[in-house]
Amino acid sequence: MAGHQHTDDSGAAPPVLLTPGPLTTSERTRRAATVDWGSWDRRFNDLTASVRHRLVAASGAARPVLCVPMQGSGTFAVEAAVRTLVAPGDRLVVAVNGAYGARIADMATRAGRRTVVVEASTDVPVPVDAVADAFEQHPDARHLAVVHCETSTGLLNPVEDLADVAHRMGRALIVDAMSSFGVLDTAIDHPAVHAVVAASGKCLEGLPGMGFVLVPPDVLDAAAGRCDSLSLDLVDQHRYMERTGQWRYTPPTHVVAALHEALLQYEEEGGAPVRLDRYRANREALDAGMATLGFRHYLHESLRTPIIQTFHSPDHPSWSFPTFYELVKQRGFVLYPGKLTTEETFRVGCIGAITPTVLTAAVGAIESALDAMGIPVPVSPS
Amino acid sequence: MAGHQHTDDSGAAPPVLLTPGPLTTSERTRRAATVDWGSWDRRFNDLTASVRHRLVAASGAARPVLCVPMQGSGTFAVEAAVRTLVAPGDRLVVAVNGAYGARIADMATRAGRRTVVVEASTDVPVPVDAVADAFEQHPDARHLAVVHCETSTGLLNPVEDLADVAHRMGRALIVDAMSSFGVLDTAIDHPAVHAVVAASGKCLEGLPGMGFVLVPPDVLDAAAGRCDSLSLDLVDQHRYMERTGQWRYTPPTHVVAALHEALLQYEEEGGAPVRLDRYRANREALDAGMATLGFRHYLHESLRTPIIQTFHSPDHPSWSFPTFYELVKQRGFVLYPGKLTTEETFRVGCIGAITPTVLTAAVGAIESALDAMGIPVPVSPS
Repeated sequence: MAGHQHTDDSGAAPPVLLTPGPLTTSERTRRAATVDWGSWDRRFNDLTASVRHRLVAASGAARPVLCVPMQGSGTFAVEAAVRTLVAPGDRLVVAVNGAYGARIADMATRAGRRTVVVEASTDVPVPVDAVADAFEQHPDARHLAVVHCETSTGLLNPVEDLADVAHRMGRALIVDAMSSFGVLDTAIDHPAVHAVVAASGKCLEGLPGMGFVLVPPDVLDAAAGRCDSLSLDLVDQHRYMERTGQWRYTPPTHVVAALHEALLQYEEEGGAPVRLDRYRANREALDAGMATLGFRHYLHESLRTPIIQTFHSPDHPSWSFPTFYELVKQRGFVLYPGKLTTEETFRVGCIGAITPTVLTAAVGAIESALDAMGIPVPVSPS
Repeated sequence: MAGHQHTDDSGAAPPVLLTPGPLTTSERTRRAATVDWGSWDRRFNDLTASVRHRLVAASGAARPVLCVPMQGSGTFAVEAAVRTLVAPGDRLVVAVNGAYGARIADMATRAGRRTVVVEASTDVPVPVDAVADAFEQHPDARHLAVVHCETSTGLLNPVEDLADVAHRMGRALIVDAMSSFGVLDTAIDHPAVHAVVAASGKCLEGLPGMGFVLVPPDVLDAAAGRCDSLSLDLVDQHRYMERTGQWRYTPPTHVVAALHEALLQYEEEGGAPVRLDRYRANREALDAGMATLGFRHYLHESLRTPIIQTFHSPDHPSWSFPTFYELVKQRGFVLYPGKLTTEETFRVGCIGAITPTVLTAAVGAIESALDAMGIPVPVSPS
């Protein structure tokens, strides 16, 4: 599916990205990025409106929600959601069981929001009871921020259960659905979910460069005047867009056009269920091959997603992730390093414009790389 | 120079953008955006390092400066500079003689920086004496923020003179050089200039989607811990990049690759002086044609730049900018609306991968559009 890419300086085809975004996109998507659009032009405004409309559709929301796009990486969109929905000085509970949860806690603290962290180990879901306790202890904390699929491990957090607790206790959720949006249910229709945040370059298979926030209209309206950053104000961005059809500040026009094309392909493929099936098939091909090679998953099976898999590094004196990475890359595949501080792991993404054949070929490259490193397989006893 | 672009739905070639960014880029630049790069990959890190190095070279700085790239539009980079260099609660003087100066005042106020506005009419340069008075009245204001070329009119502000005053009074400048960087002297070597901010999609002729800040190392070091936004912290961005070679958060990989290719072409063309000569020739072709049609410039000649020209709209009952815009666009050229609240104007950009021939053809399209609207030329008495 990835199609032909322009070759690099060496004349070789670029490797397939098995990373959680930027990822391998289709040729059709990349080609949509080769037109210069006027950011003031009606046709570009139509493109923006179409992207927003299609993102709402991709969310699967049955209730009315608005889509507010935001320039920058997904992190910028998360910070925009936090700064727009939680007033300066207000309290926020942040669930942390990985690097991306920790990042939200950090950004909220830096933004002067009083932050209560509910921390869990990186190999277990956010404990719902501990969040309830935090709400109990902090009646002034109106929001919980949580990462849906923790990309640092691939772990799925129980957003539906967390939303139930929040709803019962009169609180609201900001869901960072960066790597799950478009394939997994983000609980967007739950009344306690006030924002779902994602980005162009993940499961929607667009190019990186913009994020977006899905938010019910009444929630956005109520947040007017709260945001203490001009660039990151979702209310201003939305109102300006509604009034003029344009982005407030220069949009990443080529990235927007590519996302539009990527969304058309997403719809043609069959949307969330069909894409999820493809990613599941990718994961199965990867898992089958990696099991043969003796690689062990970091997460228990019940916690894994078809987005990205975290594997323990082989316990062998010749192991070196940088060497392994380069050898696998020479064989055509880019892997992703681990993002855990306590354990030696690496990650393999299952998302992007790729099929199970690609994952099977990647396992072949991994086997060949291990061989070149003198690491026998299976790398660990089964 | 613009080369072939993929045709749009109607089969027609996309129009040439005579806008101040996004603008018309070269085919070579756009094609560089069609490769998927791994954001963790060493080759992408090399690309980022090369872009940073080349941006420093393009700045013409003789003294040591660092280049800190920032995801998002240029406005995000300006907010990053303000939030990183001016501590929360500190005072900042902002010179305002157009929409972009007003935007800085707005963003600084929203960010909780105490803002003193020195305002001038949109058709005169920022008055140096008034800035000196503001410094005098506010000894606690350590910084002045000023837009170098006010894109809302094309007016050039006297950054060198403002830097002299600031230096004499022990203050520092943040220069928004969005639409001048790469062709005009931003006074980057002046000791009072603490930051020069610009973006990918202006005179460097890259795609929109990232900004950057040039800052002396000691200034950046001294600012550590000041920024109250995680996403927009230039110190964190720089230190992470120095340590790992990577961007802190997902970079707009395709935009970075395109900027790299655009910078190579900038250097091959001969850098700032040769590009400035081309833009001057573009402006001369435009001015000659527009004079024949009887269009009057909004700004006095001494204040104009070769970046963008602001013209008074014809005083004719059949005039309508939206109609004019559509007619000119049908003839192959995208113009830019005015951004003044008090006068009916429109703008024509002279920057991008275009030559004087293009501007002459654009004047022909403008003449034909006026004819179609029943507006006789010359539109005003000469």
